[in-house]
Amino acid sequence: MSNIVSARANDSVEPLDSSTYPILSGITSPADLRKLPMEKLQDLCSEIRHFLISELSHNPGHFGSSMGAVELTVALHYVFNTPYDRVVWDVGHQAYGHKLLTGRAGRFHTNRTLGGLSGFPSPSESEYDTFSAGHASNSISAALGMAVASQLQNDSPQRQVVAVIGDASISGGLAFEGINNAANAKANVLIILNDNDMSIDHNVGSLNSYLAHINTSKGYNTIRYRIYRFLRALHLISEKNRSRILRFNNSLKSLITKEQNIFEGLDIRYFGPFDGHDLPRIIRVLNDIKEMDGPRILHLRTVKGRGFTPAEADPASWHAPGTFDPETGKRTSPDKAGTCPPKYQDVFGETLVELARKNPKIVGITAAMPSGTSISKLQEVMPERTFDVGISEGHAVTFAGGLAKEGMLPYVAIYSSFLQRAYDHIMHDVALMDLPVVFAIDRAGIVGEDGATHHGLFDLSYLSDVPGMTIASPRNEIYLRHLLYTSQLPGRKGPMAIRYPRGKGSVTDWRQPMKELPIGKGEKLREGTDVAVLTIGPIADTAARAIDAAAEKGVSAAHYDMMFLKPLDEDILNEIASKGMPIVTVEDGSVKGGLGSAVLEWLSANGHSLSVTRIGTPSGKFVTHGTVKQLHELCSMDERSIADAIIIAKEKTRK
Amino acid sequence: MSNIVSARANDSVEPLDSSTYPILSGITSPADLRKLPMEKLQDLCSEIRHFLISELSHNPGHFGSSMGAVELTVALHYVFNTPYDRVVWDVGHQAYGHKLLTGRAGRFHTNRTLGGLSGFPSPSESEYDTFSAGHASNSISAALGMAVASQLQNDSPQRQVVAVIGDASISGGLAFEGINNAANAKANVLIILNDNDMSIDHNVGSLNSYLAHINTSKGYNTIRYRIYRFLRALHLISEKNRSRILRFNNSLKSLITKEQNIFEGLDIRYFGPFDGHDLPRIIRVLNDIKEMDGPRILHLRTVKGRGFTPAEADPASWHAPGTFDPETGKRTSPDKAGTCPPKYQDVFGETLVELARKNPKIVGITAAMPSGTSISKLQEVMPERTFDVGISEGHAVTFAGGLAKEGMLPYVAIYSSFLQRAYDHIMHDVALMDLPVVFAIDRAGIVGEDGATHHGLFDLSYLSDVPGMTIASPRNEIYLRHLLYTSQLPGRKGPMAIRYPRGKGSVTDWRQPMKELPIGKGEKLREGTDVAVLTIGPIADTAARAIDAAAEKGVSAAHYDMMFLKPLDEDILNEIASKGMPIVTVEDGSVKGGLGSAVLEWLSANGHSLSVTRIGTPSGKFVTHGTVKQLHELCSMDERSIADAIIIAKEKTRK
Repeated sequence: MSNIVSARANDSVEPLDSSTYPILSGITSPADLRKLPMEKLQDLCSEIRHFLISELSHNPGHFGSSMGAVELTVALHYVFNTPYDRVVWDVGHQAYGHKLLTGRAGRFHTNRTLGGLSGFPSPSESEYDTFSAGHASNSISAALGMAVASQLQNDSPQRQVVAVIGDASISGGLAFEGINNAANAKANVLIILNDNDMSIDHNVGSLNSYLAHINTSKGYNTIRYRIYRFLRALHLISEKNRSRILRFNNSLKSLITKEQNIFEGLDIRYFGPFDGHDLPRIIRVLNDIKEMDGPRILHLRTVKGRGFTPAEADPASWHAPGTFDPETGKRTSPDKAGTCPPKYQDVFGETLVELARKNPKIVGITAAMPSGTSISKLQEVMPERTFDVGISEGHAVTFAGGLAKEGMLPYVAIYSSFLQRAYDHIMHDVALMDLPVVFAIDRAGIVGEDGATHHGLFDLSYLSDVPGMTIASPRNEIYLRHLLYTSQLPGRKGPMAIRYPRGKGSVTDWRQPMKELPIGKGEKLREGTDVAVLTIGPIADTAARAIDAAAEKGVSAAHYDMMFLKPLDEDILNEIASKGMPIVTVEDGSVKGGLGSAVLEWLSANGHSLSVTRIGTPSGKFVTHGTVKQLHELCSMDERSIADAIIIAKEKTRK
Repeated sequence: MSNIVSARANDSVEPLDSSTYPILSGITSPADLRKLPMEKLQDLCSEIRHFLISELSHNPGHFGSSMGAVELTVALHYVFNTPYDRVVWDVGHQAYGHKLLTGRAGRFHTNRTLGGLSGFPSPSESEYDTFSAGHASNSISAALGMAVASQLQNDSPQRQVVAVIGDASISGGLAFEGINNAANAKANVLIILNDNDMSIDHNVGSLNSYLAHINTSKGYNTIRYRIYRFLRALHLISEKNRSRILRFNNSLKSLITKEQNIFEGLDIRYFGPFDGHDLPRIIRVLNDIKEMDGPRILHLRTVKGRGFTPAEADPASWHAPGTFDPETGKRTSPDKAGTCPPKYQDVFGETLVELARKNPKIVGITAAMPSGTSISKLQEVMPERTFDVGISEGHAVTFAGGLAKEGMLPYVAIYSSFLQRAYDHIMHDVALMDLPVVFAIDRAGIVGEDGATHHGLFDLSYLSDVPGMTIASPRNEIYLRHLLYTSQLPGRKGPMAIRYPRGKGSVTDWRQPMKELPIGKGEKLREGTDVAVLTIGPIADTAARAIDAAAEKGVSAAHYDMMFLKPLDEDILNEIASKGMPIVTVEDGSVKGGLGSAVLEWLSANGHSLSVTRIGTPSGKFVTHGTVKQLHELCSMDERSIADAIIIAKEKTRK
């Protein structure tokens, strides 16, 4: 699509070996699947699992969820008339099997690579991928829209719409809004709750406890006990009636499960829970309920990593395991220890622990990503001051507002792209009261293989006009520590955002003593006379190399690390303006609304008319998946492109 | 606060007449209230109601909700030790009584006026106003944060935290996320569900049906029936046991109500429903449950407008009735019919009906605001193509994405400020698939008396980098019609935002034939030689008068209505650039990220260095409440300020 910066498609096909995959190799679309006899389907599931283990062991991806959803995937395409019937995958970590069955097995070796398959369902890739699936909890609302559209258009035969949502995603408020409206709309939506009792980390929140205890709830036990007492008081039971009461209890249990659980309470028919790996049963149930009118929920219990023992034993670390030995499960791409620079998230996590030990006001908040943000490090040592609120970014921020209003200093660690869910909460529940909440914005900028839904391109843009918000980005791990230290000092006011990228930093001896940085002050890293290069964040390194390259071509560029988008360092800007140097701004995110725009606005407001070349991802564009390096090249943010921009900028010196 | 553009406080006090208000006039804070004997409290409630009727009849505000919450408000401040204990009002339409009891009765005549009291709870106004309360559904998350902070800080005595949420707000996903986490956190939060079965319009969604039928649910009846059959099959009952069974049923009913309802299902203790106007009972219940540990929900049924017969009879139109006769309820500020220009929202609503009659793909969506957005006009004639999804802006947008993906053309009508809740949904569930969803953004710009939480200042900023989004604003009602017509033409692609202000337009003969407008094309309204004035939206009128005023001072300004923020009309910009005219941009919203910024970015990218003066609300600031005219002056967006800017701009002509 024209909205997405993309590379040429990599259409290379590696046909499946028919001796290893006798069934799967014959399936070019779900129509082929639907011709198979029932008794072959379990073998197909085994082939799919074998394929996933074999492929993902050397081409890393999301492993556990897809392994757990194999039977469900086969059953869905077997029972429903896809693509006429619609299957909406929530998040889509679980959808690799779906890709294999919908004509993409031969291209699966390109998964998550530039020009290759997306790691998530993607409507631009296949008509079987019905809706965007990168941000959690949207499937029910989307499916409801599709089902209502089908009703309004009087589709014949009636189109079936199925939303497949994991138990972690259902804690998102959007899922609840979807369920609430699905019940009201009476549209024909089937919601499949794929309950593996395990999100990327673990589930939190009472809803999950509710799901876990749906058959053994305290409420149910209370009822059973009270009924027992009541019947005894009525002299309706005796000891010899115990077995009848037992049976009675079982009936009651079933009544509660089927009639009085939370979904039925919302007037949605509920079926389950069933074993999500019992393929014949799932197919039977799906056939039973698919023609029913109105909203329905099918609750399946599955095991993440099913069929690969190491993954079943440790599902959290097998969510996206990297490469591994397909026989033993031994990781072949462990994090290198020792001299390698750490991940930014780990520097955040470890520094937060250091700070929290000294500052009792600090608390940490994550939305279902303790290990993904490394706030798990705080959780380990101060569980009472760490809050995993589940997939609910909006709540995470408003909750932080409440904490801050009463004197605490919350650090909310959320990925840039997911923080979009909390834009209003930042505005209304934090900024409006000028509360000291610190946003640790991980995965800012290009993230690589996770692609369009996961890049953090827009945070500088949408945060830059939030009243009172301080916005900073460190150029390396040491400055991340300094910024974190600065953010918790008593004198500092209002909300503050600190953004940093996915992956590793550049400095190995990062555990330096922390120091206060003056808010709104950048640093001059290099003198230069022809051009002023302004950067924010770790892309300073790329820019520095580009400046070297430009110097070899005879162009002398000064380099300023602005560090703060807001407030801008006006001393630096005045210095550049007084010299009349053309400016090149470099940032890892959209060129609109970030550093380049802020510099333009400052220059205009202050009556300067310097040339400004803005480098970043193109305005108003998403960016496809690939390695970070490939994508920086694709967006002309790589060393060579920046060097070229510097050289061209020299020609624009104010006469 | 420095984040808010404010005027000097209006501290004028009008003491209450002690003969009319013998009790209320003696209450300067809740401490005074708590000294009263129980038997005086009902009289106090009557005085509060009398005061509200008397005041609001000539100084309009939110009437119905506050009238319905009088007993609850008195009970809360009577039982809890406010302000040490925290009461968090959700939205805060209901909080006028709270203002009267917390030392603000004498200032209440300044309600919603410049420098006067805010119409909503406002922490900057009073320590009794504990949290921002303009956007719905945030109270539970905020209260949970406060309660957790109190736990962590070992407050002694233990601080009580109460969230008061209406039944309409509880349908928002944020409320669900808050409930889910409140249950998990085991913090001492009391959630009071003020259930008046009536949001601004009516409630939608199954949750509300659930609340309405909590005592008479189908599930319960099914259980009763099955138990009856079961016991009969066991020969445990006979006809002569019927009365016992009846009692049994009642017990069961109570069990289900208290043990198995949706809140208990989430492991939150539930109390109610109780009559929210039975003051002694509410006080007794609050005293009973206030010291309990953990999360609790108290469900009160109240009547919106309680105590004023006309309002009880027609609660929707008495939500914010304008001025009225306090004796008869007769409105004294009805919408003038006939020759007056219509409200923008009505032009939207009526035009949408016209278009929908011809274009079967059109559907309308509102988040609990059918009459507030006038999508009620579509609802009246095509109920099957109109969707009121309740307070759930995120769902509204994702649902629209699902509809659009299947070929429908959804018009999502949401106020600018509330659309912030759906920023990510616009990005991920609409823009990423380039779906043709039209956003009818009402209340864009300064809205007046509702103040900081309700102004629509940031939409141009946060939408301007949404990939593929067309963004337009009409300068009058006729162009709103043209834009709506254009938005639904078959050739148009992708999402489109049409923003328009609160209140009336400027044209009486607005029902003109509709015509297609070229996307991304503005119009030159006036020739001029010294300065180019670029406007977007109805603020064109103010700018036109400013241009007249500047002309009287000898400055000739051209006037361009840009109409589209995105795509920008490059022909206009090239024309201006070729003439080297200084530019003044005028927009009703933040100067950052909107028209002014877009013009700067275009000029820089195209190598032009013109002076640009950007007029709008100040970057990074909220704006207080007052009349639109007062606030435009406060933000230097009034006729005189714009004229001054034009005159000054002339001096900046490129030499």
